[in-house]
Amino acid sequence: MNKWIGLDIGGTKILGALYGEDNKSIAQSKKKTKAQEGVEIVMEQVFKVIDALYETIPKDETSTLLGIGIGVPGIVTTDGIVKFSPNIPFKDFELKSLIEKRYQVPVSVGNDVNVAMFGEYKFISDPANKNVLGLFVGTGIGGAIIIDGELYVGQGAAAEFGHIVVNADGAFCGCGAQGCLEAYASKTAMQRYVETQLSKGRLSVLKDFHEKDGAVIKSSTLQKAYEANDTLAVEVIQYASKYLGIAIGSLVNMFHPDLFILGGGIMESLGKEMMPLVLKEAERHAMPSLLDSVRFEISKLGDDAGIYGAFQLIKRD
Amino acid sequence: MNKWIGLDIGGTKILGALYGEDNKSIAQSKKKTKAQEGVEIVMEQVFKVIDALYETIPKDETSTLLGIGIGVPGIVTTDGIVKFSPNIPFKDFELKSLIEKRYQVPVSVGNDVNVAMFGEYKFISDPANKNVLGLFVGTGIGGAIIIDGELYVGQGAAAEFGHIVVNADGAFCGCGAQGCLEAYASKTAMQRYVETQLSKGRLSVLKDFHEKDGAVIKSSTLQKAYEANDTLAVEVIQYASKYLGIAIGSLVNMFHPDLFILGGGIMESLGKEMMPLVLKEAERHAMPSLLDSVRFEISKLGDDAGIYGAFQLIKRD
Repeated sequence: MNKWIGLDIGGTKILGALYGEDNKSIAQSKKKTKAQEGVEIVMEQVFKVIDALYETIPKDETSTLLGIGIGVPGIVTTDGIVKFSPNIPFKDFELKSLIEKRYQVPVSVGNDVNVAMFGEYKFISDPANKNVLGLFVGTGIGGAIIIDGELYVGQGAAAEFGHIVVNADGAFCGCGAQGCLEAYASKTAMQRYVETQLSKGRLSVLKDFHEKDGAVIKSSTLQKAYEANDTLAVEVIQYASKYLGIAIGSLVNMFHPDLFILGGGIMESLGKEMMPLVLKEAERHAMPSLLDSVRFEISKLGDDAGIYGAFQLIKRD
Repeated sequence: MNKWIGLDIGGTKILGALYGEDNKSIAQSKKKTKAQEGVEIVMEQVFKVIDALYETIPKDETSTLLGIGIGVPGIVTTDGIVKFSPNIPFKDFELKSLIEKRYQVPVSVGNDVNVAMFGEYKFISDPANKNVLGLFVGTGIGGAIIIDGELYVGQGAAAEFGHIVVNADGAFCGCGAQGCLEAYASKTAMQRYVETQLSKGRLSVLKDFHEKDGAVIKSSTLQKAYEANDTLAVEVIQYASKYLGIAIGSLVNMFHPDLFILGGGIMESLGKEMMPLVLKEAERHAMPSLLDSVRFEISKLGDDAGIYGAFQLIKRD
C-alpha cells in the first residue's frame, strides 16, 4: 500500500499524519516546534515527527512511502525554499531539499494557509469545482487560489487575501500597509474593535469574558454573545462581515470561481451567523449575476486541514 | 501556409486581420458595427469583415485557414456564448457556434479586454513570464489574468479589475457598486474629477481643452497639461495614480505574478508620468519584498491589441 506523510509546521506545534491511498489518516504524531530554540532544534522536532510516522509503516515490500507534504507559515518559493517565516526561524531555508535528502522521497512545501485551504478543497472533492478560492479568517487572514484543480502560488506568495486593500485611507494593518482586509475582519481586528468599545464604557457581556479569558476573546464566546443579542457582539460581527463581503465581491469579480470556501476559527464558529451578512454585502459589490453561479462552503476540517492539505499536495505531485 | 483570423468586435467598429505563422498581419478589414440596428445587422457586418479577409487567402493547397479568434465587449462564457454585452445587442448569443458553423473552422471567443491584454502578453513573448496580469485603463478599467501562459477566465467573467473595491464607503461606480477602482482611476473618473474642479472655478489649461473638445478630454491633452505643470492636471494624475497603485499592490499580494502589463489609452499616453507615482503607492501596499520580483511593462500594440490577441487566442487553441 502506498503511503504519504502530511506535515503542518506551526509556530507552537508540529502536527503530522500518515495517510493511505483511501485518503484516511493511519497514524498521527505531534511535537512542540520550539521555535525560540533556533532552526536546528526546530528541524530536530520535525525529524522526530516524521520518524515517528515512518516507523508505523510496515517494513514489507507492499508498503512504500511515496512522499512528504509540508505546510509552513510564511513565504515559500516554488522550489520549496522558506524565504521568511513570521514565527519560525526559517530564513531562505531549503526545507524541501533538506527533507528530500534525509528521507529520499519527493517533498512538496507550501504556505500553511494555502495548504490548509487546498486540503479543504480536496476534502470537498467535487470535480465540477475546478477554479476555487479559499479565504481563511483566523487571527490573521489568508487564503488559497486553486486554478484548474491545482494550487496556484505565483512566484510563491500568492493568495495573501488578508492584504487586499478594502479601504484606501483606512485602518493601519500589522503588515505596515493601510486599509487591508486583515485590519477589519480578522480575529485580531474584531478583538481590537471590542476592546476599544469596552474601554469607552460600552456595556456588553463580552466584558466579563474579556476579563476572564485575558487578552483573547474566543470565537465561541463571540458566537454566544451574538446569539444572546448583545449589541456590541452584533455590531462587531456586522462590521467584520461587511468587509469580508466587500473582499469577496472583489474576489468574485477577479476570479469568477466555481466555489468559494470560507475557513478558519471565525468562520467555523460564526459562519452560520456571518454568511448571510457577508453574502448580502458581496452581492452589492460583485458584478451583476456573477455571484449567482458561485457556490459557497464553510470549511470542515478544523485543525486537520493543514496535515490533510499537505498530504494532498504531495499525493498530487 | 497556415492562416488565422483575429476579430475585434467593438461598440462602433469591427476590426479584423489575417495572420500568418510568423505572427505578422497579412490583410486587414474594418466595418461599422451598426449596433443600433440589431443583432442580425451586426452579424452581417461581422461576416463582411471575415469574408473580406477570407478572400485574400490564396486558393491553393498550401494555404489553410485554421481558425478565427474573436474579442467582444461583455461577459463571454467558456463555451463562447456572449451572455451580455454593454454596447452590442448580444444576449445569451451563441457567437462561437454560429461562426464555426458558417466557416467550418474552430472559433475562440473572449472578452475584448481579456483578449487585448492577452495579445499584449503574447507580443512581449518572453517564456520566463508565465503568470501575468494585464490592467487596461481606458474609458473603463478591465484586465486579464494569464496563468501558466494561458488566459484564465474562471466561469467567463474573470479579471474585472475595474471592480475591485479600493474604498469601502467611497465613490459610486457606473456598475452600481461603491468604491470600485473604475470610479477613481478610469478616464471617465479623471474627466469627472476635472469637471468638478472646473465647475468650482479652478483655473487650469484644461478649461480651454474642455470647452474645445466638448465632453471628453483626451489623454494626450492631459499629458501636455501635466508636462506644463498645470496644478489641476497634476492633481488628477496623482489621484488616479494613487488608486491604481493601491489596486496593483492588492493584485500583487493576490497573484504574485511574474509580469504586470499596464495598457489602455491612459497608460499609453501618460504611462511615463504615472508609473513612478503608481509604483510608489503599490510599494506601500504590496507585502514586503513581493514587488521587487515583479516586472512592469506598458502595453505597445495600441488599437491592434484586440485583433492580435484574438489571433493568438485561436492560434493557441
